[in-house]
Amino acid sequence: MDWTKKVSRLMTNWKREVELRNLGYKVYGNPFSTSTRRVLAVLLEKGLSYESITVDLKSGEQKTESFLSLNVKSRAITQYIAYVHSARGTQLLYLQSHETMAILTVWMEIEAHQFDPFASKLTWEQAIKPIYGLETDKEVVKENEANLEKVLDVYEKRLGKYKFLACNTFTLADLHHLPNIQYLLGTPTKRLFEDRPKVRKWVTEITGREAWKMACDHEKYWFGKQMK
Amino acid sequence: MDWTKKVSRLMTNWKREVELRNLGYKVYGNPFSTSTRRVLAVLLEKGLSYESITVDLKSGEQKTESFLSLNVKSRAITQYIAYVHSARGTQLLYLQSHETMAILTVWMEIEAHQFDPFASKLTWEQAIKPIYGLETDKEVVKENEANLEKVLDVYEKRLGKYKFLACNTFTLADLHHLPNIQYLLGTPTKRLFEDRPKVRKWVTEITGREAWKMACDHEKYWFGKQMK
Repeated sequence: MDWTKKVSRLMTNWKREVELRNLGYKVYGNPFSTSTRRVLAVLLEKGLSYESITVDLKSGEQKTESFLSLNVKSRAITQYIAYVHSARGTQLLYLQSHETMAILTVWMEIEAHQFDPFASKLTWEQAIKPIYGLETDKEVVKENEANLEKVLDVYEKRLGKYKFLACNTFTLADLHHLPNIQYLLGTPTKRLFEDRPKVRKWVTEITGREAWKMACDHEKYWFGKQMK
Repeated sequence: MDWTKKVSRLMTNWKREVELRNLGYKVYGNPFSTSTRRVLAVLLEKGLSYESITVDLKSGEQKTESFLSLNVKSRAITQYIAYVHSARGTQLLYLQSHETMAILTVWMEIEAHQFDPFASKLTWEQAIKPIYGLETDKEVVKENEANLEKVLDVYEKRLGKYKFLACNTFTLADLHHLPNIQYLLGTPTKRLFEDRPKVRKWVTEITGREAWKMACDHEKYWFGKQMK
């Protein structure tokens, strides 16, 4: 099973490589995939070294599914890295307060299960499908935008109270949103973020982070780190 | 939106009620729902007081979806409670080691995204559908059992190295499995757990926990705690 290998890689190889041989992480992915970018963003926020291994994404229906499933796994990987390397770079968690960690967990869950389902479909329809020469389904876009609007109304309220979603510092709860938001800023869905002042400010702040800009610069930070 | 209310309840009411008025938690759910039982198990492991509010589960297709979606949310609630009340009762997290927390996170992800999809469908087909007078789909059972077998082979290997999934103590990663496993022990799927010695031992251990037995005793620990 594919994930078995991934888990054992996570738990055995990574630890061994990073701690004993100090070779850095190996990232298997594709610089256009939202999950790969999510993991890259964390490595770059932490200032960790890594090598990239490009995995071809297959087109068609199966692709969608593996794309979505990879997205889920990326959040386990980001949390893994954030915990193991909690002492270096951007903290990304808020380990000094168990109460804030509790709230952070809830917002990571909201991103994964309320924001992502709609945002991922919008990214897929408007940003990924055109790459594969597939046609955008306007009905799907309309329906998912309507749902995303309701989610963003909650965000607007939350961001009126705190600078970031979980607390007043940037955490994984914010970072996990970046890959979809970045794609959606290049689509008409952009207006959903711009129409809401607090959300707009938050989007500008998080997409402007140095590590994120590096994660998006795939020539340099993906293909430039390619394993021989 | 339903989850908006839930989140604001989580973040505002719970905190206020528990800390300022010391009234305990209010659990909205149904004692037959796996998600409700997951949350109850955590409250009982922590020795926290709560009141129960029975929410009717609707039958039919929509039910399945809301049932699954509730399941996802229950894991955010359990983590929330485990963090906020980390100092009391069973720890459930492993906050003294960031590395173990990293691994715990990965195993919670495996339960939610590798174990639960198959186990939930098997529970639904064999244990829940009969309650509503619906017919079990044998093809669905066969397919999901085949997938669950592969997952349990990984568990068997893991449990040969550690007493529990994340480490040598019982954590949320184990607890999250309980509601589905308990239902499946009453179905022919039981043999999948019994065929694997390490898994069987683990299942006996976790289903035998006092707090879990209380969570399953719904006369006493659900209807007996009903809010007036």
